[in-house]
Amino acid sequence: MMEPKSVAVVGASDNPKKIGHIILQNFIDMGYSGKLYPVNVNSTGHISGLKSYRKVSEIGNSVDFVVIAVPAEAVPSVLDDCGTARAKSVLVVSSGFSEIGNTTLQGQLARKAGKYGFALLGPNCLGVMNMRSRINTMFLPLYKLDTPKLGGVSFASQSGAIGSTVMDMVANEGFGIAKFISYGNAADLDEVDILDYLSKDEDTKVVIFYLEGVKRGREFLEAAKRVTKRKPVVVIKGGMTAAGAGAVHSHTASLSGSYEAYKAIFKQSGIIQAESLDDLLGFAKVFESEEPPKGSSVAVITNGGGAGVLAADAIYNNGLVIPQLSKSTAKALRKEMPPIVNIRLPLDIAGDADDRRFEAALNAIGSDPAVDMLMVISLFQTPGADSSVAAALINYKSESRKPLVVVSPGGSYTLEHRRMMESSDVPVYASPETAARALAALYRYSKTKGSARKNEWQ
Amino acid sequence: MMEPKSVAVVGASDNPKKIGHIILQNFIDMGYSGKLYPVNVNSTGHISGLKSYRKVSEIGNSVDFVVIAVPAEAVPSVLDDCGTARAKSVLVVSSGFSEIGNTTLQGQLARKAGKYGFALLGPNCLGVMNMRSRINTMFLPLYKLDTPKLGGVSFASQSGAIGSTVMDMVANEGFGIAKFISYGNAADLDEVDILDYLSKDEDTKVVIFYLEGVKRGREFLEAAKRVTKRKPVVVIKGGMTAAGAGAVHSHTASLSGSYEAYKAIFKQSGIIQAESLDDLLGFAKVFESEEPPKGSSVAVITNGGGAGVLAADAIYNNGLVIPQLSKSTAKALRKEMPPIVNIRLPLDIAGDADDRRFEAALNAIGSDPAVDMLMVISLFQTPGADSSVAAALINYKSESRKPLVVVSPGGSYTLEHRRMMESSDVPVYASPETAARALAALYRYSKTKGSARKNEWQ
Repeated sequence: MMEPKSVAVVGASDNPKKIGHIILQNFIDMGYSGKLYPVNVNSTGHISGLKSYRKVSEIGNSVDFVVIAVPAEAVPSVLDDCGTARAKSVLVVSSGFSEIGNTTLQGQLARKAGKYGFALLGPNCLGVMNMRSRINTMFLPLYKLDTPKLGGVSFASQSGAIGSTVMDMVANEGFGIAKFISYGNAADLDEVDILDYLSKDEDTKVVIFYLEGVKRGREFLEAAKRVTKRKPVVVIKGGMTAAGAGAVHSHTASLSGSYEAYKAIFKQSGIIQAESLDDLLGFAKVFESEEPPKGSSVAVITNGGGAGVLAADAIYNNGLVIPQLSKSTAKALRKEMPPIVNIRLPLDIAGDADDRRFEAALNAIGSDPAVDMLMVISLFQTPGADSSVAAALINYKSESRKPLVVVSPGGSYTLEHRRMMESSDVPVYASPETAARALAALYRYSKTKGSARKNEWQ
Repeated sequence: MMEPKSVAVVGASDNPKKIGHIILQNFIDMGYSGKLYPVNVNSTGHISGLKSYRKVSEIGNSVDFVVIAVPAEAVPSVLDDCGTARAKSVLVVSSGFSEIGNTTLQGQLARKAGKYGFALLGPNCLGVMNMRSRINTMFLPLYKLDTPKLGGVSFASQSGAIGSTVMDMVANEGFGIAKFISYGNAADLDEVDILDYLSKDEDTKVVIFYLEGVKRGREFLEAAKRVTKRKPVVVIKGGMTAAGAGAVHSHTASLSGSYEAYKAIFKQSGIIQAESLDDLLGFAKVFESEEPPKGSSVAVITNGGGAGVLAADAIYNNGLVIPQLSKSTAKALRKEMPPIVNIRLPLDIAGDADDRRFEAALNAIGSDPAVDMLMVISLFQTPGADSSVAAALINYKSESRKPLVVVSPGGSYTLEHRRMMESSDVPVYASPETAARALAALYRYSKTKGSARKNEWQ
């Protein structure tokens, strides 16, 4: 499904309003290089300039992946045809199944997948996107969405709209996507299968998940335990409250289950829970570029005192600590910094700090063994900060092994510099609070991964 | 200080690197229409093309506002000269006072202000900005900062860098600024004076505050009580934790005090506390355009099911409730909505919802007496949503009295529509969680203001 050599689109059409048309056209526009077969029961020979077929079984050649975009009631017979054609995998994007009470019809999908031995994704979903093999089954007007770059984060979403919205947000967040999977009602392939797949996928460095309900709780727990040993998994769970659970039921007909049960599953399996969409993205960003730290201490270097104060509060509130600088670090800093700078953490290097002062502070503090992680606050509104500061941070980051995040809140001038740093894999945040939460997530994962120092394990 | 008919800039210079040069030039560039006097002890007659003076007392005419940008040790004698000249108000932007331990020098500032009877702002600050009278004493390179539009939010900040950063952020957040006050070490004018001033200022509809420490606790409490009866006050307090308190001390030398004491002051006085910079801005946005609600119920209308689930969770987690629709509302909706739409809150009007479906949902739900506030989630990635949906929301908002917020997360296409709505005073948020927190702040204020229904008062 993710790397098919041949794809059939059932419901393909020359009518630009049909979902089947949009999906076929997206394959063509994205430059998919495998074989592409439009299928429509009323086909007269050609669709979108390609030779078309009335049935999948008419194609003759083997088909790796069939995308089905026909009305719900027509899906079962198309699946029979896929069985005849020995298709290897099937995606049903159509809605009108258990989310509107049609559980019998949905039951047929699972049974036919079992009978014919193909994997089935959906129904009621957007399907898959693989940035590397240039596959995208999202049937959305592409001008409405920014496309993320190729990267190490894979996103699985039970909700299609959350899926496309997050993809659109990611494109402006400076990290990249490996795989996207919108799986909707999960008639056959579910959360457990997706976790197993992403665990093995070499392009996937980080897994992020929008989840409404898990059907196979025990298997999910076991699968999650396996994945989190290899790579971080961040989950945002919809329906954690009574109000949300009601909304879930009328959305994907999942049982969202009790808050306590999910908290326990996440904790036992080492899954990092995000409490908001902002954190889901903020955590993904730090996990894509940074390795887990050895401990919980964070050194803050800032060119604005107030921002350093807010960062210190946020670090403390997230269970991390601000260390004491060692004597030799303090001595080195005293030599390099102007007299107005107090030698303590957070280190306020003042509003006139330029690239050289940032560099000197980073070199001294970054090599202090008491420091596990670095938060650098660069306010680009100050007189001293410009693109040479951004370059210094990029340069330091490329040589340093300790996790580092940058905080740069602001408007258009700042945004330019944020993009500059993000395109060089420096994770940048718009506020000290989101940055602190991301570092706390990274530290939590270091305990699952076993990379934290032993005395940090209590 | 905020509406001076004449301004003297002490430390004015033709050297573009001098702070006094930047401040004088900003007055000229912003089109300040009053009298402007450059003052420099080495003056040779003209600075920046204006007739210049060696002393304020040399000017001869009365001076409403003197901006002082000379080294710390020279400030006291300039203040004596201001006294001789009978200046009415003075701003000291210079640093080098109690923030580096020079408490004796700072003590002289307060005494001289008392002796000569002028109001003194600073030292160690950026000063004031009045969008209406086009006054801006911020000595920062203006190309690094976006300028916010004129609006109803006034911002007071103990920290200069937080001040300029927030101004820059505000310009991209769609709400407007009335007054900005950066007051630094507060040798004379302090938080209490600023609250009293902003309370009476007619352009100020909402007060937001970055605070590190309050010197006159009891007076602050009383002043805050007076203000919050008239207009909302949102505070972000730096140094709420042990880690932050240490950072505060080396920043503005304030005593940040105990967490519990501040919590109590904020609660008793009706001040809304923001836990992050993001919330400070998010709360300001809703307070600028929305009136406090009658109760705590929020109706969610969404064109994406998953986003509705997350909104429901966030609403519940913030102590608000999702009401039951009345029978007549449900009946009206059933007639207007396609069969696929479940008639319950959150109302998921589906991904193909266009402007007319949004309008029909808003008209039916907005007039339901069980609904106190509205959260409309418009995902612009969906096939149905475009600028006509944005126009429908603007249109509905202009006629409705109930508080309404819009949630539209996404990339560049979405951002265009966000700006469109924000320029028409619709408060738009990038995630359901930030929007829910803003509505909860609005509801909390309705209890202070006394606009909530009596049975909501428990």
